[in-house]
Amino acid sequence: METIKAKGYGTSGSIFNSLSIMEFERNAPKEDEVLIDVLYCGVCHSDVHQVKNDWKNTIYPCVPGHEIIGKVTAAGSGVTKFKVGDTVGVGCMIDSCGVCPACQEQLENYCEGPVSWTATYNGHMKPDGSDFNTYGGYSTNLVVKESFVLRIPDALDIAAAAPILCAGITTYSPLKHWGIKPGDKVGVVGIGGLGHMGVQIAAAMGAEVTAITRTEEKREAAQTLGAKDVIISENEEEMAAHELKFDFILNTIPDPYDINKYINLLKRDGTIVAVGVLAPYQAPTNNMEVAMHRRSVAGSVIGGIAETQEVLDFCAEHGILPNTELIKIQDINKAYDKMLDEEVRFRYVIDMQSLKEEEV
Amino acid sequence: METIKAKGYGTSGSIFNSLSIMEFERNAPKEDEVLIDVLYCGVCHSDVHQVKNDWKNTIYPCVPGHEIIGKVTAAGSGVTKFKVGDTVGVGCMIDSCGVCPACQEQLENYCEGPVSWTATYNGHMKPDGSDFNTYGGYSTNLVVKESFVLRIPDALDIAAAAPILCAGITTYSPLKHWGIKPGDKVGVVGIGGLGHMGVQIAAAMGAEVTAITRTEEKREAAQTLGAKDVIISENEEEMAAHELKFDFILNTIPDPYDINKYINLLKRDGTIVAVGVLAPYQAPTNNMEVAMHRRSVAGSVIGGIAETQEVLDFCAEHGILPNTELIKIQDINKAYDKMLDEEVRFRYVIDMQSLKEEEV
Repeated sequence: METIKAKGYGTSGSIFNSLSIMEFERNAPKEDEVLIDVLYCGVCHSDVHQVKNDWKNTIYPCVPGHEIIGKVTAAGSGVTKFKVGDTVGVGCMIDSCGVCPACQEQLENYCEGPVSWTATYNGHMKPDGSDFNTYGGYSTNLVVKESFVLRIPDALDIAAAAPILCAGITTYSPLKHWGIKPGDKVGVVGIGGLGHMGVQIAAAMGAEVTAITRTEEKREAAQTLGAKDVIISENEEEMAAHELKFDFILNTIPDPYDINKYINLLKRDGTIVAVGVLAPYQAPTNNMEVAMHRRSVAGSVIGGIAETQEVLDFCAEHGILPNTELIKIQDINKAYDKMLDEEVRFRYVIDMQSLKEEEV
Repeated sequence: METIKAKGYGTSGSIFNSLSIMEFERNAPKEDEVLIDVLYCGVCHSDVHQVKNDWKNTIYPCVPGHEIIGKVTAAGSGVTKFKVGDTVGVGCMIDSCGVCPACQEQLENYCEGPVSWTATYNGHMKPDGSDFNTYGGYSTNLVVKESFVLRIPDALDIAAAAPILCAGITTYSPLKHWGIKPGDKVGVVGIGGLGHMGVQIAAAMGAEVTAITRTEEKREAAQTLGAKDVIISENEEEMAAHELKFDFILNTIPDPYDINKYINLLKRDGTIVAVGVLAPYQAPTNNMEVAMHRRSVAGSVIGGIAETQEVLDFCAEHGILPNTELIKIQDINKAYDKMLDEEVRFRYVIDMQSLKEEEV
């Protein structure tokens, strides 16, 4: 099979806290695939977890990156949606079984096929169950099936838009699914990469948004993003004063946490949805608090491809952009350290030009 | 204030595992209240917990009973819904604040007033916050505000219908709220007092019901009640074969339990509702399993008064009755022991004639 050379930042696993430049090959685009020249790639919290093998499922070598924006540089003969020169995006998925009920309903993110969807990186199983590995967007190029490629609206600043492909869709999908509408009281817990998109999107949907954050530090930023109110979650009195106040809470906390203090903020029939919980178990839920007001504790994972196109268009229409800080690929390890120290405010985006210029 | 003599079975707390006969007085019916001669009273699992102070909130003396059927023997001057001679029922609540959003929507069971609703027994706070105590249906008579009194349809066998007032409404309310409709795949976990009503009600709503029970013992009974299928929850293979199969699961297990094995049975967008969990905390929930299929873990508590009338009428219309075993009040302690040993199959109902005949 014809291959294409690629450079990327990844790790072989021998020093898995540190990424460095590596060379590898990608299969040339098949009939239904496009070759993408990567321009920008967002840095997601999952990248750090995956590189460090926090979930015990990392297959090395690991080249992360699933918030990718680039230009189509070649297209297979059967490609109809895209042409060379188009500005496109790739998010967390590059394939799914295509035949299960979820895929049929354009919810590839809930694929019930034998191995669920194929992840853009560390996706070491194909939908048919055969083994391989995928390398993500911290690389010069990418080859993806056109049905998993997104169109980037002209109105979006491509240097900042990449995080919409993960942080944007991850927050948009549950807000849409649970029918957030004008006037709804929505709380967003955690004002980081995901939360700062959630605040903007919920506000654009007409909700009255409250940012719920640990410390005073992000109050002003949250208000600028569209939060009408801010609650400091460490302040017990403030939390108590907001009991039974929210129709919906979007919980973006990326670590195990005590969910019960947030459950108490929900109105009767309110729902709290975890989107950032990557550890499998959280603290025990207080059933009584859930039942006494017929509340629901739910979860949601990214969103389908059609819905991802929708959120890109929605952000373009409403002038929503991630708050980003552009970095060079050579600064990625420093960036990870800052993310772990919670020093980064919202989202790093890598300017991939820096990779192209580096010699292997 | 004029009072009425009553006899009941209760405990002063000095020997709180054992009920015995006692005398007490009730206030005579006020303008909007009726006096009820108690004919039958169901024995709920909560009665045992409350008598034994398992929830650390029992105020002694404690006279349990909140599945009450009787006849109106006197009515206050302002009573319009009932007259002397009517067959009536009283469930878990006898009052609520009446002004909060939940009460205004006829969901008194979710009352957000200062002390929530007033329980039929051990209800030691009035809606205005003042202190008193309520004595339940293990007694010769009861005085209740007419707005918390239910009409018992003629078609119901009054010796068996009492458990509809708690077990019936507790299962009907969530099935209705979550919109169970013909063809839905509904699982009912725990085929006891609550579960055996849940199976019948869900089947009458047109759902395809599966009973999920620990052992083979209840297979036949569950099928007779209307379950199309039975899963033995201790059988891991059988459980695994039913992953992603249910739209809705009604969980009636009355003790702390591992919810995760049931979560896995839900389809994408499925909901599991706990109605029998009386301990505040259950084992940690696996967020990943919840999120990966956008599932919800919810809870529900009894139902509103209008809805309780609805379930009584629904049971009459569909020929649904609790499976009951009639006992004398003098056998109540033995009955509690059997419930704790899980020897009782569905629901005990006390024939209150036995109390009337006993000398204090």
